[in-house]
Amino acid sequence: MTNPTAAMLVIGDEILSGRTRDSNMHYLARQLNERGITLCEARIVSDQQARIVAALNDLRLGHDHVFTSGGIGPTHDDITADAVAAAFGVGLEIRDDARAILAEHYDRTGLELNAARLRMARIPDGAELIENPVSAAPGFTLGNVHVMAGVPAVFEAMVASVLPKIAGGQALYSQSLTINRGEGEIAADLAVLASDYPQVSIGCYPFQRDGAFGATVVVRGEDKAAVDTALLRLSTLFPEATA
Amino acid sequence: MTNPTAAMLVIGDEILSGRTRDSNMHYLARQLNERGITLCEARIVSDQQARIVAALNDLRLGHDHVFTSGGIGPTHDDITADAVAAAFGVGLEIRDDARAILAEHYDRTGLELNAARLRMARIPDGAELIENPVSAAPGFTLGNVHVMAGVPAVFEAMVASVLPKIAGGQALYSQSLTINRGEGEIAADLAVLASDYPQVSIGCYPFQRDGAFGATVVVRGEDKAAVDTALLRLSTLFPEATA
Repeated sequence: MTNPTAAMLVIGDEILSGRTRDSNMHYLARQLNERGITLCEARIVSDQQARIVAALNDLRLGHDHVFTSGGIGPTHDDITADAVAAAFGVGLEIRDDARAILAEHYDRTGLELNAARLRMARIPDGAELIENPVSAAPGFTLGNVHVMAGVPAVFEAMVASVLPKIAGGQALYSQSLTINRGEGEIAADLAVLASDYPQVSIGCYPFQRDGAFGATVVVRGEDKAAVDTALLRLSTLFPEATA
Repeated sequence: MTNPTAAMLVIGDEILSGRTRDSNMHYLARQLNERGITLCEARIVSDQQARIVAALNDLRLGHDHVFTSGGIGPTHDDITADAVAAAFGVGLEIRDDARAILAEHYDRTGLELNAARLRMARIPDGAELIENPVSAAPGFTLGNVHVMAGVPAVFEAMVASVLPKIAGGQALYSQSLTINRGEGEIAADLAVLASDYPQVSIGCYPFQRDGAFGATVVVRGEDKAAVDTALLRLSTLFPEATA
């Protein structure tokens, strides 16, 4: 695997309590996939500094990039910037450029840049700001860690700000077929196929629909010809399969 | 925190590639929350044995329970049972009771219990089976790790089989108010509230709706009276808030 690797860290009690269903991971996964960056792992941790620090230090050492979402707002439970600074062992101060961005935004919208909002200008030493065209308050990149907001519209805008600055890889080429038979019936043929075409990855994803089991077989790889060849063989094995 | 703790491990390339959006974590989170079991962390890892083993060993040492989903079907990419056996350092063999469950099921449905399907009777030594009323093939519990299927209907049925056997805690009592003002305007009052009511947790979850920012404030705690008292104070501070 020569593509860059990535991990995601979602910071949010509200996901773990079941109050909210995360959507940022799914969004990021698709964006990274399109750019040939392999998302190897995602973690969701609660809003406790020790847990965030431990997960960050674990993930940033093992991947080319770590993307975080959540916990960079103005309220007392927004502790991600503190945790990132602690994980890197650097200071965290209100920074002039971040403050200027907030000042301009609140001036324009007629709101007060109060103490709570000013917390969002606290940036770990050495970080680079991530532009937030939705609500101004910036994210930041420190080392290989990209720290972004949890509100989906803001998260997505920040992803759009960050990704063009990151080297991508070769997007995996992927084709799939859906077979309305139980996995157990197609498993032996799939195993042979996987063994015959080691240069592609063949995943089998079962589903249940209208009471019947079926499976979507996904063939992925960097080499389009190899994927197409394996897919042709697959469709020969299972002529009833649909794209 | 005296409630039992839990972690979830989702095994699935299809989640990390963005092909599928996970729903099992959200389902489990709500089920655990209702039973007073605290979901502290969730991880999603790809279908690679080394990653599954590392995550399992990390999570099972730090939590009372670990729940996994995915990778226990009959196809070549289903490697969760192997990974769990490796993580615990125990053997993995076809077990008579699991084989009998499969034999009865396929006999009844007129399908063949072929070699691929028989893979689903491979159970790590010392594990207890988890009943699967949807498609027969059992999950299993080994130590504090509960291994379940990835197909949501099957996962949910297995969760229903497992949870009654697990000691719960005191379900957190929770109340929330929605305030149609930016977080930055309510943050100072919330910080005072959080400091005045240390026996409850006060989370502020921002959202953007119709172009305007608002926030849902969630007050949670084991003590209903304390939650209600904090909520009353909150609604006094923000009389425009809605339940």
